[in-house]
Amino acid sequence: MKRKVEILDSTLRDGAQAEGISFSVEDKLAVTKLLDELGVPYVEAGNPGSNPKDLEFFRRASELSLKNTKLVAFGSTRRKNITVEDDANVKALLAADTEAVALFGKCWDLHVSDILRTTEQENFAMIADTVAFFKSKGKRVIFDAEHFFDGYKANPEFAIKALEAAASAGADVLTLCDTNGGCFPNEIYEITKTVVDRFDVAVGIHVHNDGGMAVANSIVAVEAGASHVQGTYLGFGERSGNANLSTIIPNLQLKRGYICIPQDCMNNLTPAARSMAEIANIRLGRGEPYVGRSAFAHKAGMHADGVLKNSATFEHIPPELVGNQRRFLMSEISGRTAVLERIKHFCPQITKTSPELNDIIEQLKRMELEGYQYEGADASFELLVRKLLGQVKPFFKLGYYRITGEKPNTTDYSAVATLKVHVGDKAQTAAGEGNGPVNALDKALRSALCGFYPALSEFRLVDYKVRVMDSKQATAARVRVLITSTDGKNEWTTVGVSSDVIEASWLALSESMEYKLVCENAKPNQQID
Amino acid sequence: MKRKVEILDSTLRDGAQAEGISFSVEDKLAVTKLLDELGVPYVEAGNPGSNPKDLEFFRRASELSLKNTKLVAFGSTRRKNITVEDDANVKALLAADTEAVALFGKCWDLHVSDILRTTEQENFAMIADTVAFFKSKGKRVIFDAEHFFDGYKANPEFAIKALEAAASAGADVLTLCDTNGGCFPNEIYEITKTVVDRFDVAVGIHVHNDGGMAVANSIVAVEAGASHVQGTYLGFGERSGNANLSTIIPNLQLKRGYICIPQDCMNNLTPAARSMAEIANIRLGRGEPYVGRSAFAHKAGMHADGVLKNSATFEHIPPELVGNQRRFLMSEISGRTAVLERIKHFCPQITKTSPELNDIIEQLKRMELEGYQYEGADASFELLVRKLLGQVKPFFKLGYYRITGEKPNTTDYSAVATLKVHVGDKAQTAAGEGNGPVNALDKALRSALCGFYPALSEFRLVDYKVRVMDSKQATAARVRVLITSTDGKNEWTTVGVSSDVIEASWLALSESMEYKLVCENAKPNQQID
Repeated sequence: MKRKVEILDSTLRDGAQAEGISFSVEDKLAVTKLLDELGVPYVEAGNPGSNPKDLEFFRRASELSLKNTKLVAFGSTRRKNITVEDDANVKALLAADTEAVALFGKCWDLHVSDILRTTEQENFAMIADTVAFFKSKGKRVIFDAEHFFDGYKANPEFAIKALEAAASAGADVLTLCDTNGGCFPNEIYEITKTVVDRFDVAVGIHVHNDGGMAVANSIVAVEAGASHVQGTYLGFGERSGNANLSTIIPNLQLKRGYICIPQDCMNNLTPAARSMAEIANIRLGRGEPYVGRSAFAHKAGMHADGVLKNSATFEHIPPELVGNQRRFLMSEISGRTAVLERIKHFCPQITKTSPELNDIIEQLKRMELEGYQYEGADASFELLVRKLLGQVKPFFKLGYYRITGEKPNTTDYSAVATLKVHVGDKAQTAAGEGNGPVNALDKALRSALCGFYPALSEFRLVDYKVRVMDSKQATAARVRVLITSTDGKNEWTTVGVSSDVIEASWLALSESMEYKLVCENAKPNQQID
Repeated sequence: MKRKVEILDSTLRDGAQAEGISFSVEDKLAVTKLLDELGVPYVEAGNPGSNPKDLEFFRRASELSLKNTKLVAFGSTRRKNITVEDDANVKALLAADTEAVALFGKCWDLHVSDILRTTEQENFAMIADTVAFFKSKGKRVIFDAEHFFDGYKANPEFAIKALEAAASAGADVLTLCDTNGGCFPNEIYEITKTVVDRFDVAVGIHVHNDGGMAVANSIVAVEAGASHVQGTYLGFGERSGNANLSTIIPNLQLKRGYICIPQDCMNNLTPAARSMAEIANIRLGRGEPYVGRSAFAHKAGMHADGVLKNSATFEHIPPELVGNQRRFLMSEISGRTAVLERIKHFCPQITKTSPELNDIIEQLKRMELEGYQYEGADASFELLVRKLLGQVKPFFKLGYYRITGEKPNTTDYSAVATLKVHVGDKAQTAAGEGNGPVNALDKALRSALCGFYPALSEFRLVDYKVRVMDSKQATAARVRVLITSTDGKNEWTTVGVSSDVIEASWLALSESMEYKLVCENAKPNQQID
């Protein structure tokens, strides 16, 4: 029978401690849904004690109907010399109202003497009291043994006593942490094995990447008997980051026979990585194992030749197992089945042999060359395909737009847009002022179209993101704008690419309106002139 | 006595096979000098058989006076069914005229049957003939046993025979390659140990990163007895890249007591990584172990507190050992001590009790309420503090700017900016066209200021990021723009916040120029009018 490894994703907690990462509550909800769809069983989503706005997230998250994921709130064991019931962090953690909590406690005597500045006995009592408290509230308790490996190397007896305090108070998992991230695989293997042999409780592993070995360290811990693995989905976290789950999951599941997530979610690993990067507003590293754009890209002629003869000669796994694609950098061959897979949700009539499929793939390639990327932009992808299939007639056409911006302002607004659109044989000119050119453009376009299409008053934009694609050229580089809109029930994302941030915004903005009109099957109201 | 590990850097050969990497001959010479200064003993610099322009590099490189580095040319063993003297690749390799050559040969029977399509005997003869040929020419011969680990797993006898062919022909190093990059540390350890025990020749390791474990796999191979490590300095290479030497070297030398490079070069590891990234025209990952900008950056308040009490509590090594720096990130979670810690690099006179510290903290809070975030924007932070302390007089003042943008374009550019700046009692009006409003503004501002401050022509923007802070308001929301600039040696990041993306960009852009002027201690050139 295959052994199960329990995955805990801490993108929203430890990942949020990475430089440059800042999640809004909406972002956090989106990440949670993504991980739920991927079948990740535990999502550690915040530290309500140190970050009060996390409580708002937990309140709103309780309204999500998650299929696979249980939320975990993270916090410290109680402070020294107070009772657990009086500890403000403990109260905040309880208020998060999650089925499971992760509690971290000190396992390195240096931290007890130099940081906590308390006695060993009080430290162990802090651990035991807090674990027992949350067990008495019916929670699943994951004890995060902070600095366990460094602590064990310095004073093994002390480190083991800390685990004993947690275990005897009823902890469900003892997670061994390499908090400083500098341990070596042989150390991790041996120390984990010692703990697994000694305790009758599930053992977990949580490592950082300061020595560049977090993935390997997590793997060897599982080989030593750990059955719970913590990390962040894209590996970002404090300093050099956490163990990268998008690498660990396929390593364990495809090559070592463990079950981490449902098998039919494996081919969602790559799309999930790309969506996650979009939400976090970071660039997914090209070379990221398994999920990066270059992970199965072959440049050397010899390699490409080899792969065409037998893909196993230069690929460690078939890319489609993780939803990625093989790419030949000189002679691009596109992932036909992947495209088909995506189309079938809204055009089930297209099959592998449909001649239209070739046109779609050709057009996708052209758009990708221009810098478009449709992983995060489902609505633009659907519009592109439907337009090629002749299912969508243009709802409006741009005549022109002109925007001006100035500082200091001469009016209350810093930007004005004027534009002209054509709807059928009618035309409408409109203007909008805004506190920024895109806001002005949005107002002008709605004002021009609302008479023709009243449905457009019913939705609003909820997110606007800009990414530079080729950072070498900075402000002259091409930018990709993503706009997410909602009508209260559904959310959709559109994309625009240009070297001009305003033009890119215009493209995403106008598609966002178009998509709404497609969904409504709207007809222009010709009464308006 | 400390054991020596011989490092071979293949940035210029295997690294050049990465997507998006393309080195000119000048770039290659610059990389070679960089690695020579770092004390790297072997630099594999090209494949003259498959890339004829590499011969030009080898010719010009022979004129460099290298102190530490020997160049290595890389190529295949002879083709099947011809004599080694008649093989064009072998001739090209000889023509490179290096002291050492790296020869790769097949060690996986699958490749011999499916790719080479020849007999086992001929494969072994190809290896032996080519090694013997280069030994007869007085070269040091490094035999790269391609796909050795996969080959050994499939057919150990075959793989060992390939090594025997190389060893008995006189190879100086037998480098075991995980070409597909999918092996696990325990496999690498055991197979390497078998080879080390069996052969009386130095054993090397060359692994790829498809499983995200290339660093760990290189380390365990050394622990199994390998004494030669191949990789690329920043880890880039075919697909998910090669073993990252900027991580492996400090892991081995600072924590395991091996000698890889001269000890007094260790604190050059970080500057070398940044220069390498510049030459390769890539962005060095923030979280890169040891050498990344975030590798010793602390964000969580608890971590910052701990590090201030005792840096070993949250740092695996002191950052100065590798020429990197500790950084405390500004965020809602960082307290007074973290602010002080950050200030002391440029204002050592401010202490915990200075009254100015309160003003600074008050001002930071006001700015954070407006949406500023300084954790990623050290240059803006320094400017803010210096201005509060009266250390910086304004270098220029904005009179006004006006930008216009349009679609369709009436000129080659989609945007025009005009602006007026005041420098002392002079004023300058200028304009710039750009493919986007920010690009136009950048050009106009440089054009206005360059006469006063020639230093501004020496730097360029390398990254531009936009983030919406309150996504509920979408295009009317406040946006935060981060701009990163470089002068080739240093990189700095500035931030601007506004509801108008252009104004936010203007703020970040003008601070990026101001910061450069502060660093240069620039005085306006009053000749210009």
